[in-house]
Amino acid sequence: MIPVCDVQSRRLDAGFKLTKVGVTKVKKPVRVKRNGTVNLINETLTCSIDIFVDLPSQQKGSHLSRNLEIIREIVDDSVRNPVKGVEALAVIMCRQLMEKHEYANYGEVLITADYFREAATPNCRSTLEFYKLIGKASGERDQGIRKTVGVEVIGMTACPCAMETVTDNLRREGRYQNCDVPTMSHNQRNVCTVLLEVDEGIEIEANDLIDLVEESFSSPTYEILKRDDEAAVVMNAHSNPKFVEDVVRDVLRKIVQRYKQLPDNSILTVRSESEESIHKHNAFAERHTTMGDLRK
Amino acid sequence: MIPVCDVQSRRLDAGFKLTKVGVTKVKKPVRVKRNGTVNLINETLTCSIDIFVDLPSQQKGSHLSRNLEIIREIVDDSVRNPVKGVEALAVIMCRQLMEKHEYANYGEVLITADYFREAATPNCRSTLEFYKLIGKASGERDQGIRKTVGVEVIGMTACPCAMETVTDNLRREGRYQNCDVPTMSHNQRNVCTVLLEVDEGIEIEANDLIDLVEESFSSPTYEILKRDDEAAVVMNAHSNPKFVEDVVRDVLRKIVQRYKQLPDNSILTVRSESEESIHKHNAFAERHTTMGDLRK
Amino acid sequence: MIPVCDVQSRRLDAGFKLTKVGVTKVKKPVRVKRNGTVNLINETLTCSIDIFVDLPSQQKGSHLSRNLEIIREIVDDSVRNPVKGVEALAVIMCRQLMEKHEYANYGEVLITADYFREAATPNCRSTLEFYKLIGKASGERDQGIRKTVGVEVIGMTACPCAMETVTDNLRREGRYQNCDVPTMSHNQRNVCTVLLEVDEGIEIEANDLIDLVEESFSSPTYEILKRDDEAAVVMNAHSNPKFVEDVVRDVLRKIVQRYKQLPDNSILTVRSESEESIHKHNAFAERHTTMGDLRK
Amino acid sequence: MIPVCDVQSRRLDAGFKLTKVGVTKVKKPVRVKRNGTVNLINETLTCSIDIFVDLPSQQKGSHLSRNLEIIREIVDDSVRNPVKGVEALAVIMCRQLMEKHEYANYGEVLITADYFREAATPNCRSTLEFYKLIGKASGERDQGIRKTVGVEVIGMTACPCAMETVTDNLRREGRYQNCDVPTMSHNQRNVCTVLLEVDEGIEIEANDLIDLVEESFSSPTYEILKRDDEAAVVMNAHSNPKFVEDVVRDVLRKIVQRYKQLPDNSILTVRSESEESIHKHNAFAERHTTMGDLRK
Repeated sequence: MIPVCDVQSRRLDAGFKLTKVGVTKVKKPVRVKRNGTVNLINETLTCSIDIFVDLPSQQKGSHLSRNLEIIREIVDDSVRNPVKGVEALAVIMCRQLMEKHEYANYGEVLITADYFREAATPNCRSTLEFYKLIGKASGERDQGIRKTVGVEVIGMTACPCAMETVTDNLRREGRYQNCDVPTMSHNQRNVCTVLLEVDEGIEIEANDLIDLVEESFSSPTYEILKRDDEAAVVMNAHSNPKFVEDVVRDVLRKIVQRYKQLPDNSILTVRSESEESIHKHNAFAERHTTMGDLRK
Repeated sequence: MIPVCDVQSRRLDAGFKLTKVGVTKVKKPVRVKRNGTVNLINETLTCSIDIFVDLPSQQKGSHLSRNLEIIREIVDDSVRNPVKGVEALAVIMCRQLMEKHEYANYGEVLITADYFREAATPNCRSTLEFYKLIGKASGERDQGIRKTVGVEVIGMTACPCAMETVTDNLRREGRYQNCDVPTMSHNQRNVCTVLLEVDEGIEIEANDLIDLVEESFSSPTYEILKRDDEAAVVMNAHSNPKFVEDVVRDVLRKIVQRYKQLPDNSILTVRSESEESIHKHNAFAERHTTMGDLRK
Repeated sequence: MIPVCDVQSRRLDAGFKLTKVGVTKVKKPVRVKRNGTVNLINETLTCSIDIFVDLPSQQKGSHLSRNLEIIREIVDDSVRNPVKGVEALAVIMCRQLMEKHEYANYGEVLITADYFREAATPNCRSTLEFYKLIGKASGERDQGIRKTVGVEVIGMTACPCAMETVTDNLRREGRYQNCDVPTMSHNQRNVCTVLLEVDEGIEIEANDLIDLVEESFSSPTYEILKRDDEAAVVMNAHSNPKFVEDVVRDVLRKIVQRYKQLPDNSILTVRSESEESIHKHNAFAERHTTMGDLRK
Repeated sequence: MIPVCDVQSRRLDAGFKLTKVGVTKVKKPVRVKRNGTVNLINETLTCSIDIFVDLPSQQKGSHLSRNLEIIREIVDDSVRNPVKGVEALAVIMCRQLMEKHEYANYGEVLITADYFREAATPNCRSTLEFYKLIGKASGERDQGIRKTVGVEVIGMTACPCAMETVTDNLRREGRYQNCDVPTMSHNQRNVCTVLLEVDEGIEIEANDLIDLVEESFSSPTYEILKRDDEAAVVMNAHSNPKFVEDVVRDVLRKIVQRYKQLPDNSILTVRSESEESIHKHNAFAERHTTMGDLRK
């Protein structure tokens, strides 16, 4: 029997089923232990969590506090048993959703987290760089869970078109002499996002995705750059001019090469957005596809 | 022949095609004239525009400045010939994309705009309320354009579960006497979004969607409320307690009733997010479906 | 006698006075008519308004709905009598605050608005550019009102330090030949804000401040740039490399020259923030001072 | 002698001095150890850091990379020697600024951090709640450092005015019977910020400020609320209705009582902003004053 105040469990006659019901923007600190080692700087990630189930047409409401209990238990448990990553955390929560919401047939968990990693400048000084991790899990009851490993990386692009036009202008004016040296161009902050959705059992390391992306910019960016490093970053970026299209395609190419074993049904989104220095708006490129299509 | 600096038109051998390439966050003022009348307050909408085409695998870059030219021409033209709405504007731009980007096979335009409308409080004082309009158009070359009419509306929900538990507690303590008067509950700001995607030729009036949504909250919210109106809004909201699930289902029900002629392939998203007064996180419900499925 | 429900007017025995009480983020469309002409594109500005009075220690609450009534009346009136600018609007509202809140001794109004203006690219193509206007008014009862005219402008900076280091490196390697041609550097989007607080009667034209700022960047930025214009913007920016410090100082210099008559008690804030292309963080410079101090 | 590329150190003839030059939005993880204990959940705070010095009129630029070196060293050091709080961290950085920038006469550091704390619901279930910490330090060379301890706390307010008007209406209609039971009102999420600036040597515990603020809302808010707890929160909030003005005054009162020894020159800002459930805009109250003035 439903307790008098379990309004959520009331029966509806002419209801509609709902695709996703839950809570969003739950902030939590989670202990993470990648590859067996706890890194003192990265061991606690500050996460923002969205967590949902579907709702059948005959039931008035979803029991939202159960979602918070799931989060609470898993986050507490992470203090003693650090999770392997935010996508692993999402998978555990997604499985719990089916246990706690007996009426639900679908569960979904989305986690984003601030993340830091050691890096080295062109002249080998160490810096600590900032990233976003994205982990997602979703699935229908008894159908297995699909998980998404995602990263958001800030880098730099220098425009190949402006560089060629400038070179061409200088050449016509007789002012361009050294074919080895790139000319000036506009360059800017670029945000590149990769989301890779795979079957639950497949392991993808977020750090590998960050590596792939950083190698696909005109240049990575760094927290501390003394003069020689600053010049090296500028030289590298201009020796390697890229459109947003180039960034996306280079990431795609590296993913095809790196993940040869990944099943054809893996789903990939690669997105590059440049905060154009010469415009007030952004430039944008994206590919959304399956690994199968990408290999064709 | 490609001009020496038309880097975008360069041929690629082992490229990947891209799903969407373009510009985002272009801000523009657009003159709008709904139903033959220009409203002095609403005649100029401040829009934020995202505009994309796809890119074939053999071509290095998309000509982004053409997207800006499309925006420029249409916005300029709106001064003399105000458009009917942001979705109509998106459709015009989407068609232009196929003309200007001869290599593209897909175009997409997304527009959001601040919007204001006269409203009346429970005691019939006039107020001016704030909304967001969303207009989208997309389509493959020669396949027709699908457009989306969307609105984002702020309203109020009062929680039915907390109200019943409070009532039950008072009853047990012998402190509840008047069955006609709702007891206290938690209530909060709710943001409800409706997106309706239809074939290009079908007219959906954004104002109708706003009406539907405002009738589905526990109560609409108002800019100016003198004491009697404030009490009336509070009374109405508590006489009409709603979960986020209820808001979504009421909007779905009204849309099924209102748009009987809408083809089954029309695609509907209804979303309600409550900024819970008793929590630091939000409650969320969504249905994403076709009109065909919804009528089953 | 206070009506039974005028909770705000209740007397307090041991209260504290409050510096500012009011409402924030009120969105309104306002009709503006600069210099006697209504511009079809700019005649309606979408504003966000914050409006406050102080509160004496003996009074429980401020009557917030009166603030909304002030906004409502003035916005309505602007349909027939467009205001001269957002700072003029703030002054009118500030004066009304003293009339409507008889218990208040201080009033403050802050308005921000999206704004668009025609511009011309280096090769004289016309574009429409996006800005933010900021208008503020504040004052004590019977002491006169001070108003602030402010603008937020997006432009571009190219770094002089990286450019010199690159040049120096090339020279040492024997690869630098043409002393007339600037070498590459990092460049990025820069947001420059100017706030000028003056006595109510003094007229400052926001468009003049926008002009001053755009001339102080390495280059202004533009909505539409065809190839020749893009190259010209890049060349100009690199011929004119600037730190954030240089942008602020150039704006200061132009303001001193332009506003020779401005009283010494005028208060000026100039701020420049660069979204560094080589870093994930921003560079920042600011001067906050009086015109008197600035002239010393 | 200045190295050829030390553009920042160049002399200027007709420069202007600058109030603040530095970097903003530097993201860093910092190890914190309050009161001698490291809390596994809270030991690493994700911080956003702004760090500035002034710049004399004769010097072209500030050496921004030195600011990043300061951050780097102190954050690295925190792994072995956790800092006591974000304000303590700001003080250490502020002192370093004067050492590293020999030309500067003023330094300023602002740090904000996500923060979590255990709490107990009315029925004593444990939850983990989310807050923002704010730490600031600033000072002129050899003049001592002033530091700011700040917190941002989310809670709940129920409106006393709407409650009385509703009660009054019900009474007039003969529908109100039980004088002990509060009637319905509108209630909403409220964000309260406290900033307390003191001399460097004075210790203020951020957790105490959070306690003060949570006791000043109509009710604190909680991550997990089962039905009985939800009803208790709603009952408590309505038994304790508060305007934004009341929240600010209650915090002021508690601070005067709690910090009797605090010098008169301590500077206090208390701010409460309610995301009104019955409006689309917010209600706001603030007091900015010294402890001396507050005690009068």
